[in-house]
Amino acid sequence: MTATETLTLAEIEQLSYDALIAAGTSPENAAPLAKATAMTEADGVASHGLAYIPIYAEHVQCGKVDGHAKPILTLPKSSVVQVDAATGFAHSAIEVGFEQLIPAAKEQGVAVLAIKNSYNCGVLGVHTQRLAQAGLMGIGFTNAPASIAPTGGAKPVVGTNPFSISAPGPRGQAEVLIDQSASTIAKSEVMKHTREGKPVPEGWVLDAEGNPTTDPTAGLKGSMVPSGGYKGVGIALMVEMMAAAMSGATLGKDASPFSGTKGGPPKTGQFFIAIDPVATSGGAFEAQLATLTKAVRAQNGVRVPGDGRGTKRTQAAKEGVAVNVATLQKIRALL
Amino acid sequence: MTATETLTLAEIEQLSYDALIAAGTSPENAAPLAKATAMTEADGVASHGLAYIPIYAEHVQCGKVDGHAKPILTLPKSSVVQVDAATGFAHSAIEVGFEQLIPAAKEQGVAVLAIKNSYNCGVLGVHTQRLAQAGLMGIGFTNAPASIAPTGGAKPVVGTNPFSISAPGPRGQAEVLIDQSASTIAKSEVMKHTREGKPVPEGWVLDAEGNPTTDPTAGLKGSMVPSGGYKGVGIALMVEMMAAAMSGATLGKDASPFSGTKGGPPKTGQFFIAIDPVATSGGAFEAQLATLTKAVRAQNGVRVPGDGRGTKRTQAAKEGVAVNVATLQKIRALL
Repeated sequence: MTATETLTLAEIEQLSYDALIAAGTSPENAAPLAKATAMTEADGVASHGLAYIPIYAEHVQCGKVDGHAKPILTLPKSSVVQVDAATGFAHSAIEVGFEQLIPAAKEQGVAVLAIKNSYNCGVLGVHTQRLAQAGLMGIGFTNAPASIAPTGGAKPVVGTNPFSISAPGPRGQAEVLIDQSASTIAKSEVMKHTREGKPVPEGWVLDAEGNPTTDPTAGLKGSMVPSGGYKGVGIALMVEMMAAAMSGATLGKDASPFSGTKGGPPKTGQFFIAIDPVATSGGAFEAQLATLTKAVRAQNGVRVPGDGRGTKRTQAAKEGVAVNVATLQKIRALL
Repeated sequence: MTATETLTLAEIEQLSYDALIAAGTSPENAAPLAKATAMTEADGVASHGLAYIPIYAEHVQCGKVDGHAKPILTLPKSSVVQVDAATGFAHSAIEVGFEQLIPAAKEQGVAVLAIKNSYNCGVLGVHTQRLAQAGLMGIGFTNAPASIAPTGGAKPVVGTNPFSISAPGPRGQAEVLIDQSASTIAKSEVMKHTREGKPVPEGWVLDAEGNPTTDPTAGLKGSMVPSGGYKGVGIALMVEMMAAAMSGATLGKDASPFSGTKGGPPKTGQFFIAIDPVATSGGAFEAQLATLTKAVRAQNGVRVPGDGRGTKRTQAAKEGVAVNVATLQKIRALL
């Protein structure tokens, strides 16, 4: 069994903040990233929570991300917010952008936020969830270094590119939270199998010639299997167009890796759409969504996407989160 | 071999228009539907082109759709267009809505169109394509009577719910056109197997208890298999939230069937998002998209989604379309 230590969400946020500051991040950049780390731990996505703090620290130190970057915000049209992350953390760019996006969406009924020269934004659903908490339908896209080949090809052109959509519930919460990548499995799972020297199940990866393989190392040199075949490629292309082409960010095929210390800043992008459901539905939204989610949950043991994270979030707020002691030791060593 | 007769696109549009008028559709409602039918035939999607005209005529006559409906447009906020299709054709509602959506998106940078009390909109990509032709990134969602069960359940709650995204190219065309449903296969394919008394391949449908089956009739009483498992359910739920909950349309679980003459108007919905890529990318969009599509096409024989339809469209404009004679006979019998 893994040794754990239970921390409150406030303690997780403070520890993350202190470690990021110690690594050379400015207070303005450390704060939103620390907050998102606590939200990620609250949602039970441990793989992208505190475990990433030592990676963030290393990336500030090697220059993959500029800890002192100042995001540059422009408002080219009344419903468009554009942020140049200036090779800093995505979280700061999102923070600055959301401050404009949320009121613009409420005022005009819809607004978009395009972010370029950015970095891995962690769990995408943490960001769309904030839009739902503000009473908006939040849709998000983020691109990543290429690892999925187009149908019929073998060379990766697009990343595992997730999208997320969060629907607002009646109590200021995300009633539905969909957050899914375009591949059958997360790339981090394949990397984990490589580290552990274990084969991966068939259907996870393809080798450099596009053939099925159970060798994770061959898969990392080859490509990730898209979820649902050509339809997964369609999702990855949609996300690439939204997060990179629509924002002017670097395409996944030209981006430096998110992992390791080499290659400099990936300069990838994010794109968010925030829509006022009251305006588009004439007030029918809340009841319609409740009817839909009720019909899903009415089936024995069936959950709405986001229910699992929601339950963990409620529990974490009351009881804190049990964190891996080895992870905590690594973070405390940074202070 | 099927007997065919070659018609120009103008002839297809005129024939569709005349048949719809003869069936009791008003000129304002027949015109956009006839135009979309020609566009659908041009794109090579014969299953949803002229073959649907006799079905549309029947549905006008049985009252599943009101051929004389007048869509009601409201503009609740500066970037929101709302249309009540008034149980008429989706195409008329989209036509009226796009007249406001396109200039609003260019003015504010993004705008949305929510349609309720609508009907099957045919090929969704025909509509998003028009937004791309106007220089906008066009995203569309449309819901359908429930046929996909949530993960872990057996009872359908959402339809095969497609989404579509069309990206504008430099010559007023859709450079990328993604148009895909949430199921592994279209429901119409399963219905075709039922009519022909043939079994379907495994992985297409599930029976009423949620078990795999190759019996298409059992599948139609059960549910459609979502593409990529729970990720397909995620897509279907996203589309349901956008097309129905966000527009105030009828949920797929409560909608009357699109096929047959029973149950009255389905009153389902559509939702479109139109975004100005020049505004969001600071002008970088066109070059970025060109780099992305070039990288896909550089691999031997690999196509960008929409390339197939694009090639057929070019050919159809020059040479017309070979139409099934039996289909033409059915349509001409309506005149």
